[in-house]
Amino acid sequence: MSTTVRRVGRPRADQRPDSGISPREELLTAAAELFTTHGYAATTTRAVAERAGMRQATMYHYVAGKEELLADLLESTVTPSLALALRLLADDTASAEARLWQLCRSDVELLCAGPYNLGALYLLPEVRTRTFAGFHRARAGLKDAYGQLLASTEACGALDEGELALRTDLVFGLIEGAILIHRCDPDRPSDAFATATADAALRIAGITERPVSPAA
Amino acid sequence: MSTTVRRVGRPRADQRPDSGISPREELLTAAAELFTTHGYAATTTRAVAERAGMRQATMYHYVAGKEELLADLLESTVTPSLALALRLLADDTASAEARLWQLCRSDVELLCAGPYNLGALYLLPEVRTRTFAGFHRARAGLKDAYGQLLASTEACGALDEGELALRTDLVFGLIEGAILIHRCDPDRPSDAFATATADAALRIAGITERPVSPAA
Repeated sequence: MSTTVRRVGRPRADQRPDSGISPREELLTAAAELFTTHGYAATTTRAVAERAGMRQATMYHYVAGKEELLADLLESTVTPSLALALRLLADDTASAEARLWQLCRSDVELLCAGPYNLGALYLLPEVRTRTFAGFHRARAGLKDAYGQLLASTEACGALDEGELALRTDLVFGLIEGAILIHRCDPDRPSDAFATATADAALRIAGITERPVSPAA
Repeated sequence: MSTTVRRVGRPRADQRPDSGISPREELLTAAAELFTTHGYAATTTRAVAERAGMRQATMYHYVAGKEELLADLLESTVTPSLALALRLLADDTASAEARLWQLCRSDVELLCAGPYNLGALYLLPEVRTRTFAGFHRARAGLKDAYGQLLASTEACGALDEGELALRTDLVFGLIEGAILIHRCDPDRPSDAFATATADAALRIAGITERPVSPAA
């Protein structure tokens, strides 16, 4: 039996090509590809391990399973924007309008970055479970930061709580809507699209002129 | 063996409660619930049949399988808006601005309608296949109608082709982004949200005042 196991064609962990990225990163890249092209439910942990060029048993040295990979991938679509949002909130050298514009632009770039549309994973029914609490917290924190920046703009400063929440939803919805637009036209350069989306977000907020860009 | 089969607890097709809806509609409702709560890949045709209170063999009198159910559900999120869009394009008694506003508002209402967020199914990898060509055609037709209405507005009339396409993407992205917003807050009344989204879509288009509503 053990001979049969040794004969299978999957490369052993120490035979993986030296790509310079960590085994965990290789697993994340493999999972990103398989989850977005074959679907999350249809992808086995074994398939992820094989795609990353390692045995399933080796994989478990690096991750607990495919839920953990999905959680990591989802968080990677939010945490860089959340970190930027917190820096921008603390930076009072630029106008709220300029900081909001910068956050929108950078967030769209992030959502459209990489070869796989990870945002497509947001709508998986599996993502409702407790395993993904970290992702939901980061996403709620990011949305809250959008709300705070909006509240500091001249156009939204006088809105009541309900109106501000609705305006925040619309801006956040436009930014995340980039996931759906990007999916239909994945080859479009994200640069011009991100700029146009940031301009549109400011128009939604009621800001009619693009602010002077802050020194990032 | 046949006794065993007869003893299983699933009700026979003729035992379904008389709900007044057709068997096909019952299957669609069952599929909508299971696809959005358990996931498409994780749902078997047998589970759909059972949820609809009929045997799997009976189910095949009404639909060819779960792909057909998914295709129908997806098309149901688009074809009513496409029909409205075509009526609005042909109606020159109202301004383009007013017609665009009406289309946006109605489209958001449709995307947020029903107990299940069918829009969540847009991002399934399975939807890329040929089975769903009808859905993709209808969706492309709807987006094209948005583009034509936008081109007829004063604010977008002078845009070049590339700028108009980008503006159309942004408006369409905001409307479909309602899927993502709605999912986070499914209990919000869709009426006010749809109105606010239509207002926001017009601001993206560069239209600063809500047009006088046409007599629908």
